[in-house]
Parts: sequence; structure tokens; C-alpha cells
Amino acid sequence: MADLIRIDVASLNQLSIDALCRAGLSSDDAAMATEILVAADMMGVGTHGVSRLEVYTDRLRSGGMNPRARIEVDRRAPSLALVDGDNGLGPVVGGKALNAALDMVRETGMAYAGCRNSNHFGALMPYALRACEAGYVFIGGTNASTTICPWGGRQARLGNNPFSIAAPCADGFHFILDMAMSVAARGKIRVARDNGEPIPEGWAVDKNGLPTTDPAAALAGFLLPMGGHKGSGLSLAVDMLSGVLTGGRFLNTISSWVDNPGDPSGVGHFFILIDPARLIGRENFAQAMGRFREIVLSTPPADESTPVILPGQIEQARRQKALAQGIDIPGGLLASLKALAAG
Amino acid sequence: MADLIRIDVASLNQLSIDALCRAGLSSDDAAMATEILVAADMMGVGTHGVSRLEVYTDRLRSGGMNPRARIEVDRRAPSLALVDGDNGLGPVVGGKALNAALDMVRETGMAYAGCRNSNHFGALMPYALRACEAGYVFIGGTNASTTICPWGGRQARLGNNPFSIAAPCADGFHFILDMAMSVAARGKIRVARDNGEPIPEGWAVDKNGLPTTDPAAALAGFLLPMGGHKGSGLSLAVDMLSGVLTGGRFLNTISSWVDNPGDPSGVGHFFILIDPARLIGRENFAQAMGRFREIVLSTPPADESTPVILPGQIEQARRQKALAQGIDIPGGLLASLKALAAG
Repeated sequence: MADLIRIDVASLNQLSIDALCRAGLSSDDAAMATEILVAADMMGVGTHGVSRLEVYTDRLRSGGMNPRARIEVDRRAPSLALVDGDNGLGPVVGGKALNAALDMVRETGMAYAGCRNSNHFGALMPYALRACEAGYVFIGGTNASTTICPWGGRQARLGNNPFSIAAPCADGFHFILDMAMSVAARGKIRVARDNGEPIPEGWAVDKNGLPTTDPAAALAGFLLPMGGHKGSGLSLAVDMLSGVLTGGRFLNTISSWVDNPGDPSGVGHFFILIDPARLIGRENFAQAMGRFREIVLSTPPADESTPVILPGQIEQARRQKALAQGIDIPGGLLASLKALAAG
Repeated sequence: MADLIRIDVASLNQLSIDALCRAGLSSDDAAMATEILVAADMMGVGTHGVSRLEVYTDRLRSGGMNPRARIEVDRRAPSLALVDGDNGLGPVVGGKALNAALDMVRETGMAYAGCRNSNHFGALMPYALRACEAGYVFIGGTNASTTICPWGGRQARLGNNPFSIAAPCADGFHFILDMAMSVAARGKIRVARDNGEPIPEGWAVDKNGLPTTDPAAALAGFLLPMGGHKGSGLSLAVDMLSGVLTGGRFLNTISSWVDNPGDPSGVGHFFILIDPARLIGRENFAQAMGRFREIVLSTPPADESTPVILPGQIEQARRQKALAQGIDIPGGLLASLKALAAG
């Protein structure tokens, strides 16, 4: 592991804002994207945090993404908004779409905001957290470039599309499910390859769509979705809500930003918000979520040393710690951020 | 296998309506429930079709469910309705809630209808089909009595809660994902036990929460959710949307209708509808869904004899066949239905 350096959240925010402004973003847009990215770092999801700034700023500078995107929110119905990202930075498009959904839900009790012509928007959990902090139940997702194949196939035509369902809790530790569709992440398969170990059955198939425990064959093949046809179907459904319903791109029409960094990705996202206060009253919902959480957390564990936990619990505990004590990031990343922030 | 007898859909509908009327339902309510039940039979999901009428009518007669339930739709906000099922038959409560959602979505572009104090409402796919036939994107689910345990636990506190996401297609063959959360159904484990065969790893844990391939130990234990913590989390999320958000029951506060047939179950359901025509136009959405479907269906298959299919495709093909040729049901079931219909 690289040596880690601790940095406080405010300083990390400033580095990220400066780096994005240097790459051409307005300060408002840079602040919006930074909120999403640094939230991921605070939650321990460093793969989706400020470590992305190097690639993001490269693509902003090279014209792969549009730093001065005119992100238009088209209010199509009392509860529906369509957001055209104009090939802007994903967390800016996503942040503005979530704001639009927050405006609508106050009026009608629920809202859908869908984005098209966007890009990689970071982790999903920070958006869910913002919705929960505002008091709303959240359903959201995004499509992505292809890494898995529709169930029974042998060609990647489907993204490992993250999906989230979340609900606010009165003490600020919210119920936040945020999951991608593969059984295991590609990173875990890379680790097995580097260690010369086989991977478990069920993680991946080779390039012919046949089961494999050889990590090299798996990396040349495809990730398997959790639950087989179920995870494949759910990933398709998230793509429908993110790409088809927004009039955007979907499946293998999304451009890979790794293979084609100079092209627009055409990624789509969606956010659904529901107001629990309008349905059953804020206090009733808070009490019910409290009981719900208590029933889950008090489940007798299979292994006494490992209590049953709730989705998002670990990430939110990390976030609290980061707010109080700062974030540990690799020294090389910090140096890179400082260079980007200095221009 | 029992001998099968073919019956046309209209005759099966009439038997179901008569059976429910004899058990005390109004003819309107009986027709509404029948539409949902017979649709499941047409789709080949006989476990959730008219085979349930024996138990349903028993519970209606014994007072376990209320045949004259006053199902109230409370419009809480322009896009939100809360439906109190008054312990009525699930498919009647669900059918009325879906109607309420259909009313709202026409006004605001999207809708959430949540039900509490309901009962087992049959299969989810028939509701999704109705929404698709009306032109709407659908997200829905229900909670259920406990059969699985929260991930890492060793006590059943969570239902195998079905979840559906669906979208209409112009030719009437819709995209309909409908999935429960377990890796495998209990019925498959019973078959393995009866055949003296082990079950695959990953299907179930024993009563101590430890992995097992022994079907008897599995049946005394719990079903495992697909994707481990992911399926567990998704089942919790469906319960939150069905039970917590409706002010109803959830997790292990839902009463098992098998163990306590004379008690209200307190099951909750939810339906979300979104109008794609208001978002991007009916024709644009139809074209995009057509392309989406074509990309999936043309994926090169891993096994040349098994083409890649879409969620809900098999069930809808069966339904078309049933509409044209009738439904094959076991002779014993038909005799039972005739007896129930005759009172």
C-alpha cells in the first residue's frame, strides 16, 4: 500500500474545486462536482472520489467533455424533468438534476429527473445521501459503458449499472443501498491474477461466455451479474430508466471513456424522490424507520463477532470519522491533486 | 405430474369470479381479483394463480380476510396516494391501488400508490402488464412474511420480497422484470430433498446461518438472497417502500398466513408509474425501446441453441398462447374450482 497522508475535508474540497476551475469549470459547477466526489472519499469509496480528477480534467481539457456545458432542465410535467447534460461533467449534470427533483418533490410529493448526454457521475451514494438529508426517499441509478453481457450471451452489451434505494432516518444515519450488478468487481479479479490465485466460480465467464475460475480468462471475458438472469434483468431495467426514458444512449451505444476519451460518453442517470412526510407524516415515518432499523440490527448474527448491519452503515460511519478527523489519501494522489489545483 | 385439462380463459375467469362471490366478495371485487389471478395462470405462474383460491376463500370465510373490505384511497399529494386495504383480498387492494396510480399519472406524469393492511396479492407481473398496456413505465413491489434473514443473520426477519421494473413496447410484448430476492425458490429445494440430491452451494443456510448443501437442513434454515448482501439489501429496500412508507407492517411484524390463517397479514405493496410520453414523446420512446430490445435479443449466445431473451418474454408468449388456446390446469384443481364456484 502507498503511504497515506491525512488531509482535512475543507482542504480536499478546495483542491478539487481549484483543479476543476483550472480545467475550465465555473466555480459553482466545480463546487457542485466536488461535493459529490469528496463525499465518496469520505465514505471510503476512493475509486469514485477525487482520484478521478486526473482523468476528468484531462477529458475536460482535451474536449472529451465540455467544461462550459449548458445543462438544461426541461420541466416536462409537474413531477417530471428531463436534463440535457450537453456533455458536461457527470457530477455537475447529476447535481443539477437532483436539484430539479428536489424542487418538484416539494410541490407534488414525488419527482423523476432523468439525465441524458452526461458522463461518469461518480458514486451514487452521495446523491442518495443528499436526498435523505433533505428528508426524501430516493431511488436512483445510472447506466455505464459495457462490462457485462446480457444473461446467456457472450458479448458485452450491458453496463454494470449501479442502483440505489434510500430512506432518511431521524438520527442522520440513513438507509442507503447502493449496489452495482456484478457479483464481484473487476478490481478483485485483478488482485487474484496478480496473486496467481483462481477466482471463485460464478464471478465471471471467459470471452466465449463459458464459466471460468482463471482470472486472466475472466478479465478477457465478462463479469457475471449477481443472481444470474435476475441481476442481468435489473441492470437492463436501470439502463431503461437511465437511457431509454431520457431519450439518451443505452447498452452498447454508450461510448467507453477509457477506449474513446475524446468522445462524449452519452451516459444517462435518473433520480426518483418521494416525500414520506406527505404520505404518512414526518414523525410517523421517522418512528417506523427507527423500528425497521432496530429489527434488522438486532438479528442474531451467524458469526457472533460480526453483527448484522444495514446498507450504507459502514460508509456513513466512515463519513462521520472523515468529517471529524480528515481523510487519508495516498501521497501520490495528493501530489497530483496539488499539481492540478495549481494549474 | 397430474393429468392436465384445458380450459378457455373466459371459463376460468367465470369460475374464479363465482368462487370469490360465493366467499362474500362483490362481483366487481371478484372480477378485479380474477383478472390478476388468471393473468398469472396465463403466464405460466400457476403457483400464484387460481390455485390460490382455495386458501383465499377459506380465509375470507373464516374471517382471516375481510370479504367486504372498505378499501380507501387517500390522495395525499398530486402524485401520492395511500391505500388502506382494510384487510381485504390482496389482488383487490392491489388492483384499486394501481387504478389510483393510473389516475394520478395522467395528471402529473408520475405517481406512487402504496398499500397497507393488505394480504398476499398474487403475482407482481400482471400489475406490471396492466401498467404497460396503459403506456406507463412501472416500478412495483410487495413485502411478504419472513423466509430469509438479513445478510449475516441466523433468524428469518425478511420476506422474499418481489420487485418489478417494466416498460411498454409498441408491439404489446413489454419489458417486464419481476424477480424475488432468493437465489432459488423453496420449491426447488423440496424437489432436491425428495430426489435425495444435494443442493448447490449458495442456495441456502441451515438454521444456524451456516452454508449447507443438505436440502433438509436448508428447509429448516433460510433461503439465501441473490448476490448475498446485495439481494438482502434490495429486499430490505422493497420492504421500506411497501411497508414503512405506507405506515404499515414490515419485516417480522407481518403475520404469516400459513401459520396464522385467521389473522390479518398486514402485507404492504407499492406501485410507481412514470409517463414516457410526457418525458420524450410516445413515438420516441417506442422507437428507443425497440432498439433497446433489438440490441439485447441479437447478443451472440454462449450456447447457440439458447438465444438471449428479455425479462418477461417467456411469460408473455405463454399468455398469448393461453388467450388463443386456453390454459392447461390440473384436473384436481379444476374440480376444486368448480366446487368453490358452486358454493
